Amino acid sequence: MQGGDDDSSYAKNSEAPASAISLCRPLLLTTIESMKIFFRNEEEAESLRVADLGCATGYNTLATVDMVVEALRQRYINQCGFEPEFEAFFSDLPSNDFNSLFRSLSNIGILSDNKRKQYYAAGVPGSFYGRLFPRRKLHVAVSLSALHWLSQIPDGVLDKRSAAWNKGRVWIDGAKKEVVEAYAKQSEKDLEDFLKCRKEEIVQGGMLFLLMGGRPASQQPDNQLSDPDSRAKHPFTTSLDQAWQDLINEGMIDEETRDGFNIPAYMRSTEGGRQ
Amino acid sequence: MQGGDDDSSYAKNSEAPASAISLCRPLLLTTIESMKIFFRNEEEAESLRVADLGCATGYNTLATVDMVVEALRQRYINQCGFEPEFEAFFSDLPSNDFNSLFRSLSNIGILSDNKRKQYYAAGVPGSFYGRLFPRRKLHVAVSLSALHWLSQIPDGVLDKRSAAWNKGRVWIDGAKKEVVEAYAKQSEKDLEDFLKCRKEEIVQGGMLFLLMGGRPASQQPDNQLSDPDSRAKHPFTTSLDQAWQDLINEGMIDEETRDGFNIPAYMRSTEGGRQ
Repeated sequence: MQGGDDDSSYAKNSEAPASAISLCRPLLLTTIESMKIFFRNEEEAESLRVADLGCATGYNTLATVDMVVEALRQRYINQCGFEPEFEAFFSDLPSNDFNSLFRSLSNIGILSDNKRKQYYAAGVPGSFYGRLFPRRKLHVAVSLSALHWLSQIPDGVLDKRSAAWNKGRVWIDGAKKEVVEAYAKQSEKDLEDFLKCRKEEIVQGGMLFLLMGGRPASQQPDNQLSDPDSRAKHPFTTSLDQAWQDLINEGMIDEETRDGFNIPAYMRSTEGGRQ
Repeated sequence: MQGGDDDSSYAKNSEAPASAISLCRPLLLTTIESMKIFFRNEEEAESLRVADLGCATGYNTLATVDMVVEALRQRYINQCGFEPEFEAFFSDLPSNDFNSLFRSLSNIGILSDNKRKQYYAAGVPGSFYGRLFPRRKLHVAVSLSALHWLSQIPDGVLDKRSAAWNKGRVWIDGAKKEVVEAYAKQSEKDLEDFLKCRKEEIVQGGMLFLLMGGRPASQQPDNQLSDPDSRAKHPFTTSLDQAWQDLINEGMIDEETRDGFNIPAYMRSTEGGRQ
């Protein structure tokens, strides 16, 4: 993901996730309203720990955590008469631009003014397909528009000797059956790993809220982005294959370089997500 | 502080702190050996939380936390028969290069391989003169070669109308009495704020281990770095004033720019540190 905040940065090119995240907010708020109350009085209260998994950088990141913390804070004030302390963990791969993220936190005063501080902020570098937190420590974990990114390009896809070798393509759009199956299998394993890790990390009565790019149950996996209008625009589809082919035709790169590149993303079906 | 890992980076220019930190290791280890055991069995055990305050980036950073975690881990294995989980918090100002720090963590495998992972790592951006963690949550806090950095340039030092205006100088070396006193006062307030915040954050029986640049009790505050040999080399002393003066003489900067620059550092006396 591109760091910083210039025109090519993720922060300035994330309208689609922003829109999906906005749409899911009412559902997230309703879920928080129905959550267990963990501490009835201030003396017993531990800090409440909230994590954003696959947080990236930019406006979306802070807005989600701010909303979760504020909703929980109001509930404790109204129902228990005290304000618990909060820890907010912003997690993403070590290659994420945490420097930018931390600058945003200090720009809005979260780090500099104790009176205005609503949570203690920390960045957690690592893959959410492995453990990121100690046992039974998280009260709320959210992961918004991140779980369609796989932990790796599936085995075989970059291997000439494999039936799943994805020669000439950078993704499963239009690819042969074996490639699509390799992606589907990787996606299934990854989701299992994710859920297993979160099960260990989240306290009893805690909440896991997921929003992920997906496709209708009726739609086959080789048809990841069915809307003809979206297909025309989405960078993962054959327009990217064509761009690579142009580079090859112009002698800018060789075929081997193109064949070594694949996008590790997969849109699960609503049915697959439920299993 | 300069991020990255090129020739001008802090990571490649921190031999002096590295040497001081090496020298204090035996003392740190002895202190850990004498620490309270918090959990006698695995079922009751919470994760042990270790923080490095003013962690910077580079080899020093990881080496200290690794040593603390490993020493505690061995104690729990030997004395209680189980291995607790650890959380390690690397804290520094938001301007610290956390991206580099997190890359180091992933290079040595802490983030990528669950089996080798000895702690869950997080970066905490913020000033240690304010609260960084929730109440009663830290078991070990260390701050090595960081507390001589003040929270701010003392009031008056950059103000033309003040008796403490430090015209023509960038630090207290050779400065007038009022400047030195303003620095001494800031240093005292800062250390108090630091200790007050840590008192709230550290659990009962937890440990705070401090190593800071200082001077002998017998040495007056206007004599911060007495060793004639060090004075000749240390960048804070009059050699830096001379460098600024050269820039002014060559017309590269104006006096106002120089007068607006002061180094927010102060070496406490051993006596002052004890109070």
